[in-house]
Amino acid sequence: MAADPKFLKYVDDHQDDYIKRLSDAVAIASVSGNLAYVKDVEAMGEYLVQQLTALGATVEKRAIGTHTLEGKEVDLPPVIIGQVGNDPKKKTLLVYGHYDVQPALKEDGWLYPPFELTPDPKGSGKLYGRGSTDDKGPVLGWINVLEAHKNLGIELPVNLKMCFEGMEENGSVNLDKFIESEKDKFFTGVDCMCISDNYWLDTKTPCLTYGLRGINYYEIKINGPDRDLHSGVFGGTVHEPMTDLITLMSKLVTGDGQILIPGVKEMIAPVTDDERAKFEAIHFAMKDIHDAVGGDVTIHDDGVKTLMGRMRNPSLSLHGIEGAFSAPGSKTVIPCQVKGKFSIRLVPNLTVAGVTEKVVDYVKAEFAKLGSKNKLDVYLTHGGEPWLADPNHYSYRAAHKATEAVYGQTPDYTREGGSIPVTLDFANILGLNVLLLPVGRGDDGAHSTNEKIDTSNYINGTKLLGSYMYELAAISKD
Amino acid sequence: MAADPKFLKYVDDHQDDYIKRLSDAVAIASVSGNLAYVKDVEAMGEYLVQQLTALGATVEKRAIGTHTLEGKEVDLPPVIIGQVGNDPKKKTLLVYGHYDVQPALKEDGWLYPPFELTPDPKGSGKLYGRGSTDDKGPVLGWINVLEAHKNLGIELPVNLKMCFEGMEENGSVNLDKFIESEKDKFFTGVDCMCISDNYWLDTKTPCLTYGLRGINYYEIKINGPDRDLHSGVFGGTVHEPMTDLITLMSKLVTGDGQILIPGVKEMIAPVTDDERAKFEAIHFAMKDIHDAVGGDVTIHDDGVKTLMGRMRNPSLSLHGIEGAFSAPGSKTVIPCQVKGKFSIRLVPNLTVAGVTEKVVDYVKAEFAKLGSKNKLDVYLTHGGEPWLADPNHYSYRAAHKATEAVYGQTPDYTREGGSIPVTLDFANILGLNVLLLPVGRGDDGAHSTNEKIDTSNYINGTKLLGSYMYELAAISKD
Repeated sequence: MAADPKFLKYVDDHQDDYIKRLSDAVAIASVSGNLAYVKDVEAMGEYLVQQLTALGATVEKRAIGTHTLEGKEVDLPPVIIGQVGNDPKKKTLLVYGHYDVQPALKEDGWLYPPFELTPDPKGSGKLYGRGSTDDKGPVLGWINVLEAHKNLGIELPVNLKMCFEGMEENGSVNLDKFIESEKDKFFTGVDCMCISDNYWLDTKTPCLTYGLRGINYYEIKINGPDRDLHSGVFGGTVHEPMTDLITLMSKLVTGDGQILIPGVKEMIAPVTDDERAKFEAIHFAMKDIHDAVGGDVTIHDDGVKTLMGRMRNPSLSLHGIEGAFSAPGSKTVIPCQVKGKFSIRLVPNLTVAGVTEKVVDYVKAEFAKLGSKNKLDVYLTHGGEPWLADPNHYSYRAAHKATEAVYGQTPDYTREGGSIPVTLDFANILGLNVLLLPVGRGDDGAHSTNEKIDTSNYINGTKLLGSYMYELAAISKD
Repeated sequence: MAADPKFLKYVDDHQDDYIKRLSDAVAIASVSGNLAYVKDVEAMGEYLVQQLTALGATVEKRAIGTHTLEGKEVDLPPVIIGQVGNDPKKKTLLVYGHYDVQPALKEDGWLYPPFELTPDPKGSGKLYGRGSTDDKGPVLGWINVLEAHKNLGIELPVNLKMCFEGMEENGSVNLDKFIESEKDKFFTGVDCMCISDNYWLDTKTPCLTYGLRGINYYEIKINGPDRDLHSGVFGGTVHEPMTDLITLMSKLVTGDGQILIPGVKEMIAPVTDDERAKFEAIHFAMKDIHDAVGGDVTIHDDGVKTLMGRMRNPSLSLHGIEGAFSAPGSKTVIPCQVKGKFSIRLVPNLTVAGVTEKVVDYVKAEFAKLGSKNKLDVYLTHGGEPWLADPNHYSYRAAHKATEAVYGQTPDYTREGGSIPVTLDFANILGLNVLLLPVGRGDDGAHSTNEKIDTSNYINGTKLLGSYMYELAAISKD
């Protein structure tokens, strides 16, 4: 069922109001990772409560405990839960978003003050500001939808439950506990879920995202002498921890990305024809990634292989070493303890535990070969499972139709190479199909300087979220 | 010729005066690497000028230019040159020392205020204080010798030229230029040189030091993407600079210290029987090094092999990586540019240029094998040649006799694994045999907290320096 035309017209007619709303929200510097902005995060939560209340939603601000920020114990930003409609004949949709943002300072290289929404003076339609696309734009998209329906006097086609948190940029502390505790209360009766907190793969093609890679982060720790040594005095006499560590790190992955840990490759789920077709259909040119990384340093010259390298295959990255010399200049130290850091991105059917067993066994076996008198430890510092939704679920089919209706384009079906932990929390705890329905473009620069959202994405995104509700209401669950 | 017995008795009778002199000098916090102490370094130079002048030396304070310290251009500490005696029938001895010290703060873990010379209250004879052994004790040793001779009314057996600098702990800036410019002026007519700025190998055995390893410090720089990337988004799609770098660094040295760069081993001068005999004669137990590094992490279980690993063989140490993640915690970055840092300690006949050619060729060849699209650069950041004196030179023979006379022990003939760049400057520019004649012990902790000199080393060191003059005066140059 296509969206009510009156709704679509209302959105077109109120673009300026919507941009004003985004401007008001961006002006609240709700940085969750910095003690100086605690009040601003609180103010942003309160802003959402007032907006939602004014639009007729039932709203609650829920405390979820405290955490330590820059050494001080402070309240966690509240979770805002809201509901519009409670009709047992309608489907119930749960949406999630976050009202906190990454830090931003003008002197980091912003063209305009980061907390003043600034339209590109060249008229490109870009709206610059911290949080414009991550995630205030999408959250306000839902509020825009509610406002349109209220002012038009039209009932929503679904029951809408909303859950907005203020800690996404700082670890979503305690959100999992909140979901667990509200599983049979606020979250009861939900049919499916939509999260708009990721991005199109490129700048032109809307997409639906149905998978995320997981991540296992490891440290290899080598201990040798009990203090740092001078390489002039001790070089040539002791087993140097750095030599052992570098040797071990060199045995993890090849320059072209092949993971050398035995048994990992064998665990990967075979690629189905449907999956391959979805990757082949993605609008992607090698130029896109060359532009994104600033040159041709790609392993593959082939688009599908590159996309599967990012989304479908595991990868292993060596991030760095703690304890060794890392500053500019020269220091002739033999570090006494070093920790090598690397992570493996997980895809089905790799599991946190299964991969860890293989990593630990392999690194220990390779270390034993060295005949070193140093001590080895290798361990997982954190792990997150991969996630894969059924892209043929009715919620995805509804989003597919809505995308075609709003954009006149078939959406790409993408997966993200990185993790979005809240997705797994909702999917696993509530047992829901989760649709990731991006509003912004691939070049929005979510965590960078000069974060922006395009006006067309913000306005069409509002239409998309509304249209998705209509399609969802109408679609058969079968 | 043994030292004048009156001199030796004078030293014994004036121990308290000498300790008072060391106490006065330690109280002047002449830290050359810190802007806050510029006046103290100056004061310490002035202290030496006054002491030397009072003892009848001809003294000059020579300005050697400016340098930048913590962003501010300041005068370099002056070089103090002094002379006693100018008898063409006598040999002329040049001695070098430095009057600046390393930084020291009580809160770094000092038992006592670092700039107050403090005798160990347990009566061990240890005198704690910054600069006590490095290098104020040895410098004052020469002043003690002068004072004894002046007060006893005895002429020195040699002409003595002294050169004391105030920048040794901060790079000896411009000292080489000063030596060069004074080669045919102040430094003319010098027969040989003695530097007391290193230490016994252990705590019991006096030594003469006749060699220093050189050092070549290298960076391997890998550039890939033009910005740091997120490993979730780009892991598996690009050639990661860290992977290339770790692979290259793993090909430089084995865990048991074998340098893998082809051609380096072949350049090493063969060990002579005389050399081997000198190493075999050194008083050394494996326990010494195990105590020094805090455990048994030595490559060899054999003392001579361990000593030769430190003094006679080249070694390669991997110091760290600049540009990668190096902090505690987890960061999922793919660094876009990384610089691996390593150094090679040089021994005869390895040269800075010869080794560099082999390193650069090898690293480039190994990188080519990787088939990476990243960019490699590998270069020497600084180099210093190894140094070896003739340990059978008459100056060494004189020091050998003086050591036997003062300590009743045959000295060890050692080399230092590290570099003391001023040694090469004097040896090469002036074409002199340089004797390194340590005063302090191996556990003095020159650059550490709780630096100390043992009273017996300070007092016997004063006798040793004086006795060396007498032996030098008498010994045949043949």
